[in-house]
Amino acid sequence: MKIEYLHTMVRVKNLQNSISFYELLGLEETRRMDSESGRFTLVFMSPPGQKNAHLELTYNWDGDDLLPSDSRHFGHLAYQVENIYETCTYLMANNVTINRPPRDGRMAFIRSPDNVSIELLQMNNTLEPIEPWVSMKNVGKW
Amino acid sequence: MKIEYLHTMVRVKNLQNSISFYELLGLEETRRMDSESGRFTLVFMSPPGQKNAHLELTYNWDGDDLLPSDSRHFGHLAYQVENIYETCTYLMANNVTINRPPRDGRMAFIRSPDNVSIELLQMNNTLEPIEPWVSMKNVGKW
Repeated sequence: MKIEYLHTMVRVKNLQNSISFYELLGLEETRRMDSESGRFTLVFMSPPGQKNAHLELTYNWDGDDLLPSDSRHFGHLAYQVENIYETCTYLMANNVTINRPPRDGRMAFIRSPDNVSIELLQMNNTLEPIEPWVSMKNVGKW
Repeated sequence: MKIEYLHTMVRVKNLQNSISFYELLGLEETRRMDSESGRFTLVFMSPPGQKNAHLELTYNWDGDDLLPSDSRHFGHLAYQVENIYETCTYLMANNVTINRPPRDGRMAFIRSPDNVSIELLQMNNTLEPIEPWVSMKNVGKW
């Protein structure tokens, strides 16, 4: 019985805020579906060229009082990036908090606008640990 | 700035129960890491042949009182299967509840042992709606 991974779905409180956030990371919108009857919008986003690795954003037009929420069972989404220092610098310049800075040249954690934990990993070899990252403190949890 | 999806991480209360569950779905263990110092085990599972579509199971050796948990922000994991009726029949024979039966020949929802919602979608064309699926009721939520 063949099986293929398709996507991970997260609910979002403000669609444009979330699209902007994931675009900052480098994801692109690949598909969108508006349901007039269900009063929701689905937006699929994925890294360029990566088929079957979609993040599905579900936005309910009438809002969702329970968002943002947290849970223990869901851990995080993970992406690898070409240069973790450049990515984190770019994110910080765009007001994204680096909850776990890449002190080790290898791993960072951030949060989406809806509190979804996102792990960023350095592609291929770990980078040389350098400032300002080495001295940068953790912020909150992730 | 290149970015690539790597995995979705979920925490599990009982590692073997979860491995068995995802094996039922057709996922295979591809990598395992035991951390003696951190007292946790990571198990990566993915559909055969699908690179960069890993589900990461995190198991804390000292347990996790907050599992299973639920959240609004995290929706579900989605997989497509070759024949949704065969998959659901097989899952039911293995005591998995089909929360949302594939009445439409296209879509079903189940839950992992830790309450993670999983969407199953029919690959390619929708199947002809047939019994017992057409008359099967929903169970709980998903």
